[in-house]
Amino acid sequence: MSAPTLPERPRLPWDPPEHFEKRIPEGDNRERLVCGRCEFIHYQNPKIVAGAVCTWRDPGDDGGKEKILLAKRAIEPRKGFWTLPAGYMELGETTEQAAQREAREEACATIEIDRLLAMYSVARIGQVQIMYRARLLSADVAAGPESEDVALVDWADIPWDQLAFPTVVWALAHFHESRDKADFATYSNPTGDLARMWPPRKPEGV
Amino acid sequence: MSAPTLPERPRLPWDPPEHFEKRIPEGDNRERLVCGRCEFIHYQNPKIVAGAVCTWRDPGDDGGKEKILLAKRAIEPRKGFWTLPAGYMELGETTEQAAQREAREEACATIEIDRLLAMYSVARIGQVQIMYRARLLSADVAAGPESEDVALVDWADIPWDQLAFPTVVWALAHFHESRDKADFATYSNPTGDLARMWPPRKPEGV
Repeated sequence: MSAPTLPERPRLPWDPPEHFEKRIPEGDNRERLVCGRCEFIHYQNPKIVAGAVCTWRDPGDDGGKEKILLAKRAIEPRKGFWTLPAGYMELGETTEQAAQREAREEACATIEIDRLLAMYSVARIGQVQIMYRARLLSADVAAGPESEDVALVDWADIPWDQLAFPTVVWALAHFHESRDKADFATYSNPTGDLARMWPPRKPEGV
Repeated sequence: MSAPTLPERPRLPWDPPEHFEKRIPEGDNRERLVCGRCEFIHYQNPKIVAGAVCTWRDPGDDGGKEKILLAKRAIEPRKGFWTLPAGYMELGETTEQAAQREAREEACATIEIDRLLAMYSVARIGQVQIMYRARLLSADVAAGPESEDVALVDWADIPWDQLAFPTVVWALAHFHESRDKADFATYSNPTGDLARMWPPRKPEGV
């Protein structure tokens, strides 16, 4: 049985139309896409995805286990697979605000940012993913328009082989390693076994 | 004497032409700029600026002071003022590679990344600035095309009131605070006095 292919980069709404041509604009040193009709230079830069590993601990539950918020994707790519609330940062907000907005939009969740957990560069698809550690302010969560379902799961119940992307595995593994630490260097792209999390699976040692 | 105005956001090469109109595209929930001629949706997202506080310590210089790499801007905004090597991240690279490339382009410097120092959201101008702590691999530095001059300066000689942007003051202050620390939380936008570094000046306690 062969592994599922890492999802092809889908055609995205911001992909330029065919009458845009590659050219080095004056004063620049690399090729850019330029509109062949109006000379508009369409600079393409990496996009920021902001999200969070959001936890909840039932106040009345002595020694109760910390639960982690996951959302099941209602949209491609990887529809039906589980992810952490995260999405494209918009103009006019900070990275923290973007992570809070995405938790609200995807899981109707209100979160408080704890601290920066990780920053991953995914050069293949032009993304920088900025992941926070955050606390849910209530267990009242629900699927937003881009989610089929949401769940607060025990660590032992994380559906590792049903996770949407390698970076979701990375963020959960790094979250686990950072538990109970206040001061730690922000995690970045892993090396070794954790770097090879496709197809998604439970990493060793977590 | 009034303070210099924080530089107006200049007209940038990626600013859209006038025949682009604001509209909420189908399936979206906020206004985007759409080309009135070809319906191309011009998504605008925050851009990543990557850079570094780069240090050099002369190997033969017993107890010699650590020096910091600064570059004098040859371009607007803030031409003639001093900055840290930093610039827009490009597609196909990691944040670390972007910071290394900018050090090479602006100061002909070869650097080794130590760790992530700070991440600042500058929502007003749609930027996220990602600043590393880095070591120069040689003291052989020189002005690149976007710099009028470069310098390796002692901490005591930093020209605080000649720095180009508030974030340059922030990064230097945070670098100073992080000295000799290996594990520390990545710095983010400061609060208090350090948040008000316009006009640029030496912050208290550094």
